Amino acid sequence: MAACATATRGLQQLLVLSALGFLATSAPQPPNIVLLLMDDMGWGDLGVYGEPSRETPNLDKMALEGMLFPNFYSANPLCSPSRAALLTGRLPIRNGFYTSNGHARNAYTPQEIMGGIPNSEHLLPELLKKAGYTNKIVGKWHLGHRPQFHPLKHGFDEWFGSPNCHFGPYDNKVKPNIPVYRDWEMVGRFYEEFPINLRTGEANLTQLYLQEALDFIKTQHARQSPFFLYWAIDATHAPVYASRPFLGTSHRGRYGDAVREIDDSVGKILSLLQNLGISKNTFVFFTSDNGAALISAPKEGGSNGPFLCGKQTTFEGGMREPAIAWWPGHIAAGQVSHQLGSIMDLFTTSLSVAGLKPPSDRIIDGLDLLPTLLQGHMMDRPIFYYRGNTLMAVTLGQYKAHFWTWTNSWEEFRQGTPGDPDSGTHFDWKGIDFCPGQNVSGVTTHTQEEHTELPLIFHLGRDPGERFPLSFASAEYQDTLSRITQVVQQHQKSLIPGQPQLNVCNQAVMNWAPPGCEKLGKCLTPPESVPEKCSWAH
Amino acid sequence: MAACATATRGLQQLLVLSALGFLATSAPQPPNIVLLLMDDMGWGDLGVYGEPSRETPNLDKMALEGMLFPNFYSANPLCSPSRAALLTGRLPIRNGFYTSNGHARNAYTPQEIMGGIPNSEHLLPELLKKAGYTNKIVGKWHLGHRPQFHPLKHGFDEWFGSPNCHFGPYDNKVKPNIPVYRDWEMVGRFYEEFPINLRTGEANLTQLYLQEALDFIKTQHARQSPFFLYWAIDATHAPVYASRPFLGTSHRGRYGDAVREIDDSVGKILSLLQNLGISKNTFVFFTSDNGAALISAPKEGGSNGPFLCGKQTTFEGGMREPAIAWWPGHIAAGQVSHQLGSIMDLFTTSLSVAGLKPPSDRIIDGLDLLPTLLQGHMMDRPIFYYRGNTLMAVTLGQYKAHFWTWTNSWEEFRQGTPGDPDSGTHFDWKGIDFCPGQNVSGVTTHTQEEHTELPLIFHLGRDPGERFPLSFASAEYQDTLSRITQVVQQHQKSLIPGQPQLNVCNQAVMNWAPPGCEKLGKCLTPPESVPEKCSWAH
Repeated sequence: MAACATATRGLQQLLVLSALGFLATSAPQPPNIVLLLMDDMGWGDLGVYGEPSRETPNLDKMALEGMLFPNFYSANPLCSPSRAALLTGRLPIRNGFYTSNGHARNAYTPQEIMGGIPNSEHLLPELLKKAGYTNKIVGKWHLGHRPQFHPLKHGFDEWFGSPNCHFGPYDNKVKPNIPVYRDWEMVGRFYEEFPINLRTGEANLTQLYLQEALDFIKTQHARQSPFFLYWAIDATHAPVYASRPFLGTSHRGRYGDAVREIDDSVGKILSLLQNLGISKNTFVFFTSDNGAALISAPKEGGSNGPFLCGKQTTFEGGMREPAIAWWPGHIAAGQVSHQLGSIMDLFTTSLSVAGLKPPSDRIIDGLDLLPTLLQGHMMDRPIFYYRGNTLMAVTLGQYKAHFWTWTNSWEEFRQGTPGDPDSGTHFDWKGIDFCPGQNVSGVTTHTQEEHTELPLIFHLGRDPGERFPLSFASAEYQDTLSRITQVVQQHQKSLIPGQPQLNVCNQAVMNWAPPGCEKLGKCLTPPESVPEKCSWAH
Repeated sequence: MAACATATRGLQQLLVLSALGFLATSAPQPPNIVLLLMDDMGWGDLGVYGEPSRETPNLDKMALEGMLFPNFYSANPLCSPSRAALLTGRLPIRNGFYTSNGHARNAYTPQEIMGGIPNSEHLLPELLKKAGYTNKIVGKWHLGHRPQFHPLKHGFDEWFGSPNCHFGPYDNKVKPNIPVYRDWEMVGRFYEEFPINLRTGEANLTQLYLQEALDFIKTQHARQSPFFLYWAIDATHAPVYASRPFLGTSHRGRYGDAVREIDDSVGKILSLLQNLGISKNTFVFFTSDNGAALISAPKEGGSNGPFLCGKQTTFEGGMREPAIAWWPGHIAAGQVSHQLGSIMDLFTTSLSVAGLKPPSDRIIDGLDLLPTLLQGHMMDRPIFYYRGNTLMAVTLGQYKAHFWTWTNSWEEFRQGTPGDPDSGTHFDWKGIDFCPGQNVSGVTTHTQEEHTELPLIFHLGRDPGERFPLSFASAEYQDTLSRITQVVQQHQKSLIPGQPQLNVCNQAVMNWAPPGCEKLGKCLTPPESVPEKCSWAH
């Protein structure tokens, strides 16, 4: 059996290598890699996923020319852990992007955070460098902003973008405005040199990020260097923004304006690859870091289509993502794959595209999707839904088991009073609701409900919206439970949690005086260093 | 102004006629018309509308070859009124398919109903006959089952199907089993000669209906007669069914099996049109009678995608429908139209396809969509959402105003107790819930809430799920309200309600002894005639 499996694996590799053209006598330049990572964009935001206003012609075309994944997942319902998982191929619980300050608490990298991506983690760009790639990140890093976490210390050659989210404006006294970097140095700050008009929503940031992408592609093409572009833009994260030509053009309001500008930008990137004649030598993947932020809906939040809840939760709306693979001449056009995919697969798959193997000294959660992309192979694999330090749920095939449920606390949910006449909406609960209009009794709980002995199990094919748990008494439940229990036990047996990076906060580590601030005259004085336990609300 | 508008309209008509080839010197045979009407299929049930399992390759291809409508509506959230509206081009409140027994009560045509389609209504097939069409209905009629309401008395030349829904089995004592007709006479009854296995879901009815369609098309083609096929199949109405080759093939359970069989059947119908070389002379339209029946979910109900609630309600999930127009050589491939469409438009559009005008002696609610289909024209028009005798809501452009909200009564909703361990689901409220897991405070009400003075207004572009009503205080609300009020006043000024057909019930009028029963030895003895007021639960 083992020998047979090995032989089969060898044959698969041969097929993949052959499909990539690596068996030709003169080894060609390895393919370029472009990962287009959206911020808080939901599964339901693209026309090809059923968004009723159908305002994404370029992304829909990308899907028609490539492979669409309806069952593709982020590694976490929140930005920083999801991004760390993409670049390491490992669950946040392994790479340290979680908190142990509380049970099942979401955590990320605000300005106060002490932690970031550990040096012990091997990031995708670090590994690609070994195959001669030039690597650029455009946009949001979010893996820590202290000097040791700088993306150029973790394998990227170039950076235009920001270490944290474009929140603000801050007052540069209690909190500094978020810096924007070019490579090693800050070139300005959000809301100062890089303005976002909160009243109109106007900002030209997506255009800047687009231009960075186009310039990088052209330059690397001229240099004949294989390249990795990580285009991590953030226009769909609240406060959402768009440039003037796109403002007011969507049926969906300002959020839709941002989507339209992104769609247009993706079209321009793909067109450039085609015009340069390198589309057949460039692997492109489009996805998002977590589900749409329904707390920002309807004005600044997207859509998770038919799925339950959104960002911050481990329901499908929090972690099922839009996902499109595009590689003309390699990935056949117009395919839909039901393979369960993960954002962590982009790590392993990108390495495979480059002809590299993932590190063998640690557990890598990402799978190599090339056999799926090139030959339509299906692989059995679980999807783990963590929230902080807690395994909340797992999906195996069509079944999803919830071991813990909660969205947020009653205190947060119940804040405020209904019916404020000055508010933008009619029923103005100021409370935070990750599942507006979607409360399922016993499922979307506001206390941390433990179901580890008797998980809530849903069949995601019949019930993608997670509204109808299977009966505990059914044979289907019992059979599923036993299969899932095995998988979870195996997972937990081998699990060595990483050192939690998101536990300690300190006002002194904020972006007071990033490198380059002297040249700009924009250095601020940090307060006294007082490390303290971070408080995570959700 | 008026002269200019007339001239423009004349030019439009000229363009349409020219596109249809009617300006050629030898007038060709008018195009065939095929209306594919689904039963309780939801907006979200097709891959092209984002169904995650993507099991409708033929329908998705139909959309890619034709025009997809994301904003297409039924005329009622229930079967009979919706079907009467399709065939008359008129709202149920005009054609009599409503009840005045209670306020805002849904009503249809069960076996006890006395009423049906009045002779005073002009049905689409009656009008098409004037242009030489041969007309066939395959499947569910639902416009009354007493002799005067027989489809062959209302313009159809052929019928294979049933006057009522395939409910049952009944005991032929308290209630007779539902008959299946071929033309004038019953040829058997459901669950007897036409079995449905309620345990396995097996029934070959869709295959019978498919064969009827294919045979009719072939015969009319051979006769060189223009034809109208009304394919009103019912496999996706609970109890859902599929034939053996499709059972167990869907990721979505039995409901999905039914959808897959329908998708396959639609593919076969379109292929036949192409193989016969008549696809360019056949206008095909696919839609559904009302939203998915979420009370039957997850085992026997479909999906309304991102929309609120389902069948029986006047939220989007109750009335927004999948809709695809297909007419190769006339409708350009791969289009999406944001035109607000209505099932009633199929009446007027079909007449227009046939070169006929709608009746001018009455108000017709259906628009001629040919300018949209052929030239992409957009027309301003309201969508009215009635429930029984009550105008519940109206959509104008992107805005929807609710004048009344309710889904069903507290008594119905609260029936039963949670947590029955023997049930198929974990939280077994036996109560009827048209919005499972989707209750929006103040919106999905269980009392009849009047909002006529201050309607709840939603922007369906930003908020297709109807979760966030606009603030009463906003300028957007005030502006929208004044525009919508004008439209409603105009509508109500000209409204002459038809004689309500769904008020009186009588056990004696059930399908005891349909014509042809003697030949089959299947005549049953009706009870004494006792007309009484029908009781409508929802």
